[in-house]
Amino acid sequence: MSVGRVSTQRVVLYDEGDPLVLSTGVTLAPVEVAYETYGTLNAARDNAIFVAHALTGDAHAAGHHGDPSRLGWWDRLIGPGRPIDTDRFFVISPNLLGGCQGTTGPSSTDRATGRTYGMDFPLFSMSDLVTVHRRLLQHLGIERLHGAVGGSLGGMQILQWAIDAPEQVGRAVLVAASALLSAQNIAFSAVARTAIMSDPDFHDGQYAAAGTRPAAGLSVARKMAHITYVSEELLDQKFGRERRESGPPRMDTDFQVESYLDHQASTFIERFDALSYLYLTRVMDYFDPFSDNGAAERAAGGTRFLAISFDTDWRFPTHHSIALHERLLAAGADSQHVEIPSVWGHDSFLLSPPGYHERVAQFLA
Amino acid sequence: MSVGRVSTQRVVLYDEGDPLVLSTGVTLAPVEVAYETYGTLNAARDNAIFVAHALTGDAHAAGHHGDPSRLGWWDRLIGPGRPIDTDRFFVISPNLLGGCQGTTGPSSTDRATGRTYGMDFPLFSMSDLVTVHRRLLQHLGIERLHGAVGGSLGGMQILQWAIDAPEQVGRAVLVAASALLSAQNIAFSAVARTAIMSDPDFHDGQYAAAGTRPAAGLSVARKMAHITYVSEELLDQKFGRERRESGPPRMDTDFQVESYLDHQASTFIERFDALSYLYLTRVMDYFDPFSDNGAAERAAGGTRFLAISFDTDWRFPTHHSIALHERLLAAGADSQHVEIPSVWGHDSFLLSPPGYHERVAQFLA
Repeated sequence: MSVGRVSTQRVVLYDEGDPLVLSTGVTLAPVEVAYETYGTLNAARDNAIFVAHALTGDAHAAGHHGDPSRLGWWDRLIGPGRPIDTDRFFVISPNLLGGCQGTTGPSSTDRATGRTYGMDFPLFSMSDLVTVHRRLLQHLGIERLHGAVGGSLGGMQILQWAIDAPEQVGRAVLVAASALLSAQNIAFSAVARTAIMSDPDFHDGQYAAAGTRPAAGLSVARKMAHITYVSEELLDQKFGRERRESGPPRMDTDFQVESYLDHQASTFIERFDALSYLYLTRVMDYFDPFSDNGAAERAAGGTRFLAISFDTDWRFPTHHSIALHERLLAAGADSQHVEIPSVWGHDSFLLSPPGYHERVAQFLA
Repeated sequence: MSVGRVSTQRVVLYDEGDPLVLSTGVTLAPVEVAYETYGTLNAARDNAIFVAHALTGDAHAAGHHGDPSRLGWWDRLIGPGRPIDTDRFFVISPNLLGGCQGTTGPSSTDRATGRTYGMDFPLFSMSDLVTVHRRLLQHLGIERLHGAVGGSLGGMQILQWAIDAPEQVGRAVLVAASALLSAQNIAFSAVARTAIMSDPDFHDGQYAAAGTRPAAGLSVARKMAHITYVSEELLDQKFGRERRESGPPRMDTDFQVESYLDHQASTFIERFDALSYLYLTRVMDYFDPFSDNGAAERAAGGTRFLAISFDTDWRFPTHHSIALHERLLAAGADSQHVEIPSVWGHDSFLLSPPGYHERVAQFLA
């Protein structure tokens, strides 16, 4: 069952008198955070599950905002009787720092200048994302999470949280995540950023002031990334070499897979911001939590882990999950890893391949 | 040994009185072709080997044009004592139709308008490339090839030739080729074309008249394609997560793999044309030679085949080579397939992984 109608809350967690201090030492204020909650916090305040979203996600993980056909991105997982069971758990889902769906990010207004931060927004780290999440938890009066769950960049935030404050995270579910991007991962993100920044409508990040948006660059970035989110098998099954109409070859969109990418890009550029794309991909590039001495041991002391990967995921293939699982195991952690068969590639974390939801439910129960 | 100093020839193979008739029925004239030859045609005129280049190649396959440090793209394979042995063979290497290195293509001047063809250049097929190659052969007074060799798009041209005129191709070497692009292959090319065509400097293909070049779009296209040309393993070995300098994270180029892609793109946009990129990727998208009834059987009647693939090639993985090899075998062809271990991915066809050159040499001998 779905959680039904929900709404997004907003709260200012840092202001000029109490700014967010980033791991670089740079301060940022104000920082507003958009979030949603589902289910009810119990009297003991010990039934909270934190959900961290991926690169292009937002706070709206479950239910709908009035149109029951437009459900949150993890509605399959969150709800009464679902793996993240809102009959039992109180679920918190914020938009992350640097995002563009209500939480302060590079397209927010810089009070010092009265214009968009743009490229003057400070770079931040995975730990900074966690710092803001922890402040939200404090605001909600919750000391410790029963569990925390995230896919892709979401899983990375949860892993960082377990390292930074293991006493606060009972169980961590890391889905299709990585503790270290490969050179190829970084390369794909670099090309996406080049596409955005070389769009003349980018205006060095001040596109809002210029009354434009780097839609063409963001569109190319999204199309390319989308190819890496789905498996080669899925594209073959769904589209193969089908064309929209027969007739002679043409230069413009003709194959169904091209039309699909066009559609993916056009809906994406309506809902997502190019500056957030730049900053959040960069957070992932630099993520290297185990380079911090004793990180795995600290995490092992407080948190139980479940790492889930999908056999056709070539964005963060199973070896990424195995690497982080084995690092945690070696540090003495209670850690499990499971590879789920699925044709959907990296995007499987948003879907329901057999075995996936069951494992999440069991682990959180 | 290298063939040493060589030069590119040019010949007008079609003119207004005798235009090239494309497979769509559209005519094109004049068609000039740039080509190089290495070695000596024997008296029997039966020692010719035709070399067909890949997407971004040119006629300059071997030797140098004056600077011995700047060798042709297949100099490793072509020369005295090399696998394509110029002591024995007469080697012909043209720039293909639609190219930008001397052969007529979409950036050539349309005599009817006095300006660049641009997007008015007709779309053409793999068979049309072969038609022009055959006319060049006729011009050189050669009826039959001892062999024909090509990598990637080059291998596809050779396969098409063996289908269109099997009596003319004694032995065909198809390296890292495919007889049918997957949906993922098409998707990557579609994104590259989007990057080029959405660059404002593209000017609907009339960038020469506008005094511009879609350098940013072509750069993005090349960077993305380059990721697919090399294996994930190679990028990890060569660059891993190394940075150019230590210090805090930065948004601009920092990781060595980013710097490498920047370099690849900047040298590429100096030498290659965006319109050729559009047209030639489209030729590959539509390539489907075995959909032509009896194609495999025709090829089997005249040509011996060697298909070579590389185990880390994920642009055209081994299953592409196996598919075309098995199709030819089923049609009764004398066909061999070998997979060569190599860390270099698709680009292996330009390099010297152990076993590769030996197999080419044996097959042609």
